[in-house]
Amino acid sequence: MASPVTPPRGMRDFLPADKAKRERVLGVIRQSYSAHGFDEIETPVMEDFGRLHAGLGGDNEKLAFNVMRRGLDAEAVRAAADADDPDALADLGLRFDLTVPLARFYASHRASLPQVFRSVQIAPVWRAERPQKGRYRQFVQCDIDIIGEAGILAEIELLTATLATLDALGLENCRIRINDRRILLGLLDSFGFDPAEHDSVLITIDKLDKVGPEGVVAELREKGSRPEAVEAIERFLAVSPPVLPEAVAPDAVADLARIGAALSAAGVDGALVFDPFLVRGMGYYTGTIFEIEHPDFSFSLGGGGRYDGMIGRFLTESVPACGFSIGFERIIDLVADPAAGAGDAVALVHDKNAEPERLLALKRQLIAGGRRVRLERRTKNLGPLLERLAEAGFDSFALVGRETTEAAELEFKTLD
Amino acid sequence: MASPVTPPRGMRDFLPADKAKRERVLGVIRQSYSAHGFDEIETPVMEDFGRLHAGLGGDNEKLAFNVMRRGLDAEAVRAAADADDPDALADLGLRFDLTVPLARFYASHRASLPQVFRSVQIAPVWRAERPQKGRYRQFVQCDIDIIGEAGILAEIELLTATLATLDALGLENCRIRINDRRILLGLLDSFGFDPAEHDSVLITIDKLDKVGPEGVVAELREKGSRPEAVEAIERFLAVSPPVLPEAVAPDAVADLARIGAALSAAGVDGALVFDPFLVRGMGYYTGTIFEIEHPDFSFSLGGGGRYDGMIGRFLTESVPACGFSIGFERIIDLVADPAAGAGDAVALVHDKNAEPERLLALKRQLIAGGRRVRLERRTKNLGPLLERLAEAGFDSFALVGRETTEAAELEFKTLD
Repeated sequence: MASPVTPPRGMRDFLPADKAKRERVLGVIRQSYSAHGFDEIETPVMEDFGRLHAGLGGDNEKLAFNVMRRGLDAEAVRAAADADDPDALADLGLRFDLTVPLARFYASHRASLPQVFRSVQIAPVWRAERPQKGRYRQFVQCDIDIIGEAGILAEIELLTATLATLDALGLENCRIRINDRRILLGLLDSFGFDPAEHDSVLITIDKLDKVGPEGVVAELREKGSRPEAVEAIERFLAVSPPVLPEAVAPDAVADLARIGAALSAAGVDGALVFDPFLVRGMGYYTGTIFEIEHPDFSFSLGGGGRYDGMIGRFLTESVPACGFSIGFERIIDLVADPAAGAGDAVALVHDKNAEPERLLALKRQLIAGGRRVRLERRTKNLGPLLERLAEAGFDSFALVGRETTEAAELEFKTLD
Repeated sequence: MASPVTPPRGMRDFLPADKAKRERVLGVIRQSYSAHGFDEIETPVMEDFGRLHAGLGGDNEKLAFNVMRRGLDAEAVRAAADADDPDALADLGLRFDLTVPLARFYASHRASLPQVFRSVQIAPVWRAERPQKGRYRQFVQCDIDIIGEAGILAEIELLTATLATLDALGLENCRIRINDRRILLGLLDSFGFDPAEHDSVLITIDKLDKVGPEGVVAELREKGSRPEAVEAIERFLAVSPPVLPEAVAPDAVADLARIGAALSAAGVDGALVFDPFLVRGMGYYTGTIFEIEHPDFSFSLGGGGRYDGMIGRFLTESVPACGFSIGFERIIDLVADPAAGAGDAVALVHDKNAEPERLLALKRQLIAGGRRVRLERRTKNLGPLLERLAEAGFDSFALVGRETTEAAELEFKTLD
């Protein structure tokens, strides 16, 4: 009995049909982002351990797969044990997102990049999370980022490129919830929460979708927040649509209004929804934040925001940056396959003893005519074979007879 | 002063122009292999440590990047030190080739795959080699393999698909040196070498290209091989083209002749060169072996062969297999970029203070007309900006004036 031969826990193999669909969907995304003026880059899957654990990745840093130093001997291992520092045995790690590598890349190549740099990254990342339905330890992220643009032109380009890409994928009814961290924090101030408890309050507010206003209020009470502040938030949540106190982050409010107006003027109507209680987990956001929602799905299909403090971390100065990420693993099952593409795919079904020379000649004639050609050895029962060929995207098949030497003699029958 | 921000040692970032060319060249390879009936698959970048170090990878196993178990504490580290077994700290590793993962994949999914499975894998692998010119620690391999076909139809399909792909890449004058392990070992027997020294003799013969016949003979003498055997090899090497003793591996010789005839009959003339002293390093080859050479380059552009013993390693039975790999990192610098592709790429050069709303409207009009559009903020000196745009593949640019609101008003000037 052979031992089980599965991929590592939480990771996946992709068989031909899945792999082909994934590549075709990624092709649509690539082309759409490219049309919108974004440039694809690539970084190695590994980064230096220290850079990966520099505090830019939040909780994800704890989920990193770390790579052992090469040539470790027992002595080095003992030293790490004595120092109670297992991390000393690692010098590299697999990236857990595409933002830390982008910050490192930008610091490394800034002189060769445009003043405003619009990047696309379509690449796998790794997180040692507990595997569960729809959550994997290796998964693809699709990020676009604009670095070096402090104004709302960045947000506008990111939002339109993302919406156009979702359209191109057939996800026409997506809406984007938008907020600004400055509004969120301004609101907490206006309610009278202690700045020291902001993070904790945000964690509770982030559950609004799940637990509703009562749940949020109950949890804040339980946490011992100031009663007046909890009452203020309760009053705020009772009004729909929400009404912002006038003093709250007027610049941010004006920016959001202008972004919305620009999209409307360009004909992208109703796609943007202001949500003053949209939080987004990552602590590095400094301004606008976005999240993609679709009426048919309860989960978000992606998100992003402005993170002006982060790209400069590996430089001597601060650099404005804003990014948007489509959750590729979430959308791949929702979108239709953008057509088999490769055109006319035919299978030549032949006897086991058919002469290779003759099969080769037929195959070459058909490929020269623009066809995709698969040789298939005939099985006793033809039914399942033809079924599998149809599943694999082949349009037709022909039986190769003992005498067939010219492609013109083949009789193709449609598969479906 | 910021710390240096390079990628990890021996690994590379790809800036937009390089990344675009790599993707386009990979697209040509993908399409050609697909036309020839091969199906692309994907496996995770990591495999279980034990499977990766099961002896299928030869010397490459020593070059693996190993991944530390998650949640290691000092106690576990001390235990590994006490047992003098640093490897006990790793449970996963990054793949060093695509053949071990293919064997594992095939064992895992055999029931869902065709009887004869033709796979394409285009993916990165990692080896902790000493970095040097043209040798990297992360690099892309392009492998095609046919699993389940014991006859020469596998070799014929692999050779024609590979030659057609090289053609499609503009490497028209490639030749493929071909040999068979059975001929190689039969020759050593016929010369009278001790079977126990075959491996060592093969290592010496493998240097023939570099050191010539005299070098090979001298090294064999130095190694203390049987004098009669060394004399026999010296006589063999003195005759050109080489003449095989009749008793040497007649089946293998007949197979090679038939493969050559099939390719000639199909019009692929002169691309195949029999080289009885072609060795190929990997010990797992059992039959035919191939290597791609090009008149303009001294190094091989790829290679492969039959490895019937290996795919079955994770199953209870043996499965025939044959593969061919194009050395992507070697050819990428040799081939011309298969055209910028994305069509008409235009840049809108605008003032810093141009209204985002207006720029967005112009951009959308142009994208709707099928153009790729980049917004570029105007710099004091326009020359370098335009130069960079041309380098980045943009065909034309237009200055956005204060009054421009319609794309039709833009005056495009050609970039080159």
